[in-house]
Amino acid sequence: MSQQFASTLLENAVNELSRLPGVGRKTALRLALHILRSDEKNGVALGNAIIDLRRNIRYCDCCHNISETPLCPICADPLRDSSTLCVVENVKDVMNLENTRQYRGLYHVLGGLISPIDGIGPDSLEIDSLVERVNAGDINEVILALSPTMDGETTGYYIFRRLNGSHVAVTQLARGVAIGNELEYTDEITLGRSLLNRTPFNE
Amino acid sequence: MSQQFASTLLENAVNELSRLPGVGRKTALRLALHILRSDEKNGVALGNAIIDLRRNIRYCDCCHNISETPLCPICADPLRDSSTLCVVENVKDVMNLENTRQYRGLYHVLGGLISPIDGIGPDSLEIDSLVERVNAGDINEVILALSPTMDGETTGYYIFRRLNGSHVAVTQLARGVAIGNELEYTDEITLGRSLLNRTPFNE
Repeated sequence: MSQQFASTLLENAVNELSRLPGVGRKTALRLALHILRSDEKNGVALGNAIIDLRRNIRYCDCCHNISETPLCPICADPLRDSSTLCVVENVKDVMNLENTRQYRGLYHVLGGLISPIDGIGPDSLEIDSLVERVNAGDINEVILALSPTMDGETTGYYIFRRLNGSHVAVTQLARGVAIGNELEYTDEITLGRSLLNRTPFNE
Repeated sequence: MSQQFASTLLENAVNELSRLPGVGRKTALRLALHILRSDEKNGVALGNAIIDLRRNIRYCDCCHNISETPLCPICADPLRDSSTLCVVENVKDVMNLENTRQYRGLYHVLGGLISPIDGIGPDSLEIDSLVERVNAGDINEVILALSPTMDGETTGYYIFRRLNGSHVAVTQLARGVAIGNELEYTDEITLGRSLLNRTPFNE
C-alpha cells in the first residue's frame, strides 16, 4: 500500500521510526501522529534523548559496560569481588544478571557473539581485552554467561580455548536455562538459579 | 521490576520512549539498545526527524490537514471538486480516504471529536472554521466521515445542527456490514442498520 504523505517531515519521521525493530510502517505512522498530537516539549525531549543516547554514551574502559565515567560503577566498587569475572554478550545481560542480586563479582561485556553467518569474528568482539584482563592476574574464575544458542556455545568454546593456558577456572551458567532461548528473555529466578549452579566448562 | 541503568542517558531515553503508545518499559529498553548498537548516523537521524516533525510541522490554513505550504496540495489542486467537503476527525483519516481513490472533493480536519468525558468541547475543534467555510458559499455537500462511535455520532449531530440554516446537503458514510466480514460476527446494531438501508442489488 503506497501511503501519500502530505508532508515530507511526516514521511521522514515515519521512515526513521520504521527502522526500529518490531516497528512496521503502520505502527511508525501511529507513533508519528501521536508525537504530533502530544506536547511539543515531549516530542523534542524524545528526539533529544535519542540523539544524546547515541552521541554521548560512554563505555567502561575496563568491562565495556555502558558508563557515565571512565570506570563504570561496578568496576569502581571496592566491595565487589574482583577475583570473579562474568563474561556476557551485551549490556542488557549485565542488567539482567544484576537484577538477580546473586552476583557480586565483575563483568566483561563482549559486545556480541561470534557468528560466522553474520560475519562476526572474534576480532570484532572484546575477547583480546578479556584475555589481557585474565593474564594480568588477580582473577580466579571466569564465568561464561552466554546464551545457550549456537553462537553462544561457539563463543564460549572459543574463549575457553583462549584461556586454556592460564590458571583460571572457567565455568558456565548451569543449564537450567532452556536450550535455544535467548538470554534476554529468561526470567530472573531461572537466571539466578543457573548462576548459583554454574558448572566447570568441559568440551 | 526495578531496572538498574548504568547510565542516566539510557534511563532518560527509556523513559521518553516508553511514553509512546503501545511501548512499555521492556520494549523501550529494547529500542534504546537497538539505537545504541546501530550507526550513529541513524540514531541522530531518528532523533532529528522527531524534533523536526514536532517543531516544524504546519497545517493547511484552509482544511487543517498536515501541509508543507500554507495551502495543502489537496486544497491547492484545481482539479479537485471544491463543491464537496468531507469532514474527518484527523490527518490519518484523510490518508485512509485518499488511499481509497474514490474521493475527488476537499477535506476539513476537525482535530478530534466532541467528547464530554475527555473534556473536549466543540470550541477545541475546527468546527467554527467549518461553518465559516460552508457559509462562504461554493459548497453543495458536506460528508460527515466520522467514526460510528458515541463521540463520532455526537460530533456529527452537533455539526448537522450547526449547518442546519445553510443550504448544503449533509450526508454521512454508509453504515453497513464491512466487506470481507462474516455476517455471523457482525454486531446486531450494524446488521439492523444495514437491513434498513439496503440498496438495490446490481452486478
